[in-house]
Amino acid sequence: MSLLVTGSIGIDTVHTPFGKRESLLGGSAIYFSYAASFFTPVRLVGVVGEDCPETLLKIFEGRDVDTSGVERRKGSKTFRWHGSYLQNMNEAVTVQVDLNVLAEATAPIPPQFRDSKHVFLANTHPRLQREMMQSLHSPRLVVADTMNLWIENEREELLKLIGSVHGLVLNDGEVRLLTQKQNLVAAAKEVLKLGPRFVVVKKGEHGSLMVTESDVFVLPAYPAEKVVDPTGAGDSFAGGMMGYLSTQGSFTSSTLKRAMAFGTVVASFTIADFSLDGLKATARHQIDHRWDEFKRAMAF
Amino acid sequence: MSLLVTGSIGIDTVHTPFGKRESLLGGSAIYFSYAASFFTPVRLVGVVGEDCPETLLKIFEGRDVDTSGVERRKGSKTFRWHGSYLQNMNEAVTVQVDLNVLAEATAPIPPQFRDSKHVFLANTHPRLQREMMQSLHSPRLVVADTMNLWIENEREELLKLIGSVHGLVLNDGEVRLLTQKQNLVAAAKEVLKLGPRFVVVKKGEHGSLMVTESDVFVLPAYPAEKVVDPTGAGDSFAGGMMGYLSTQGSFTSSTLKRAMAFGTVVASFTIADFSLDGLKATARHQIDHRWDEFKRAMAF
Repeated sequence: MSLLVTGSIGIDTVHTPFGKRESLLGGSAIYFSYAASFFTPVRLVGVVGEDCPETLLKIFEGRDVDTSGVERRKGSKTFRWHGSYLQNMNEAVTVQVDLNVLAEATAPIPPQFRDSKHVFLANTHPRLQREMMQSLHSPRLVVADTMNLWIENEREELLKLIGSVHGLVLNDGEVRLLTQKQNLVAAAKEVLKLGPRFVVVKKGEHGSLMVTESDVFVLPAYPAEKVVDPTGAGDSFAGGMMGYLSTQGSFTSSTLKRAMAFGTVVASFTIADFSLDGLKATARHQIDHRWDEFKRAMAF
Repeated sequence: MSLLVTGSIGIDTVHTPFGKRESLLGGSAIYFSYAASFFTPVRLVGVVGEDCPETLLKIFEGRDVDTSGVERRKGSKTFRWHGSYLQNMNEAVTVQVDLNVLAEATAPIPPQFRDSKHVFLANTHPRLQREMMQSLHSPRLVVADTMNLWIENEREELLKLIGSVHGLVLNDGEVRLLTQKQNLVAAAKEVLKLGPRFVVVKKGEHGSLMVTESDVFVLPAYPAEKVVDPTGAGDSFAGGMMGYLSTQGSFTSSTLKRAMAFGTVVASFTIADFSLDGLKATARHQIDHRWDEFKRAMAF
């Protein structure tokens, strides 16, 4: 069943030990959509500026990603991000960021997308995330992401959002900031009290952690030997996870665990090359093969 | 079958968010021995000073740890370490360290210990580690630890040691320093080329990684919700791992994986309280129970 994602679309400059690349396609919704499209049809909602090359969204040609929810806004400029991983491959240093059109109103969810059953609200102002959620008819699964900015400055709005979603995906620094707890298991359990049925904590190269009412699940990252560009790993993880979940009849702990393993594996293909090149070079059967291999390697 | 360990014995002062404790028993060989003794008889070799309280080694009363290899050296002082985890529970800041007797000659391996089949050479000068190894008759399994000091200043001696052991256990910073590779899988594979059959990389709260010729294995830490004092976690991990291995007939990848999981679980009991108090409060059946639980929680 189809999966709706709302999030950023951007043009990136990325500098890693493997080189510097400019005018790369990026943004949370782009990585998420591509990753999820290995599993399920995707509906993409986002906004770009007038300056965005027409060819940019050609990346989705031949894939089941409906880009009719992407607004090209006149008089606005596309979001741009310049990051460097020269010091630390696990955490980008932002050299420059120009929010541009992301600082304006979000793209509306088109009427033909409002029956979506599975939804991922990538990071934006939590009030806007909630408005988008409320414009949907009857979603089965709504999962949100967030970031430090909203945790620090829009706590009340964020708590309302967290109280109304099924799942929350955030990184280790964010869950610590949100709960003021250093221990990640304790912090994730604290978030569970705010409403969601599951909380997934992304730890970059150290893997991920999920807490539900009855379970604590820890998963290492896929032991990749060559990491060229970590940009989009977290969004690819979320895309792979949500893509798999959208094909499932229920969201039990064991389904969620398998979904996280798919997210982990998809992200391992993303980081093997710059921008979307790693995912573009990947076929679904390679994902399934690596998933099996990962499952075997993890067993003891 | 019995397991020989040589390493440090010390008196610690530890400061964590849960309080400050002084005159605690510590040192790599102490944590290792207690952890391993859940699985197999242990032979402990180490040296303390004249100032060491007679009662200190009473910790092993009622346990199968032979302390006849502990030398009490006249005119010397016991190793002392003062560490703080106030800033970061995953990495101690050393407030003060007095090597004292550790800066002198090591304790000799007593004749009655020389038939030991399983040996763990905890961190000391690599030449001394090699001498100790050479004084053994015909060990089946020799595993060594090391530290930054020797990687930086005694590289040639260290490479000789690494070339003559079956396994090497070291932490993420050490393996990066040794190989000049940032990626941990690539770094561990580089160490494999130096001779050992397996390399285990300890990543603290992020778990551990093992590389053999045919396998890469990643294991998260046990998702502990309350960490009181992380001191000795790595040595307890090594002790649990080596303790289990000493009871096994062969050292295949799958045996090594199960051993790492036992090490992980034993360490999770260590960090639940100060010094050895966590281990002292633990029974073998609790370790087996948590191991089963961990195995189930890791499956997907």
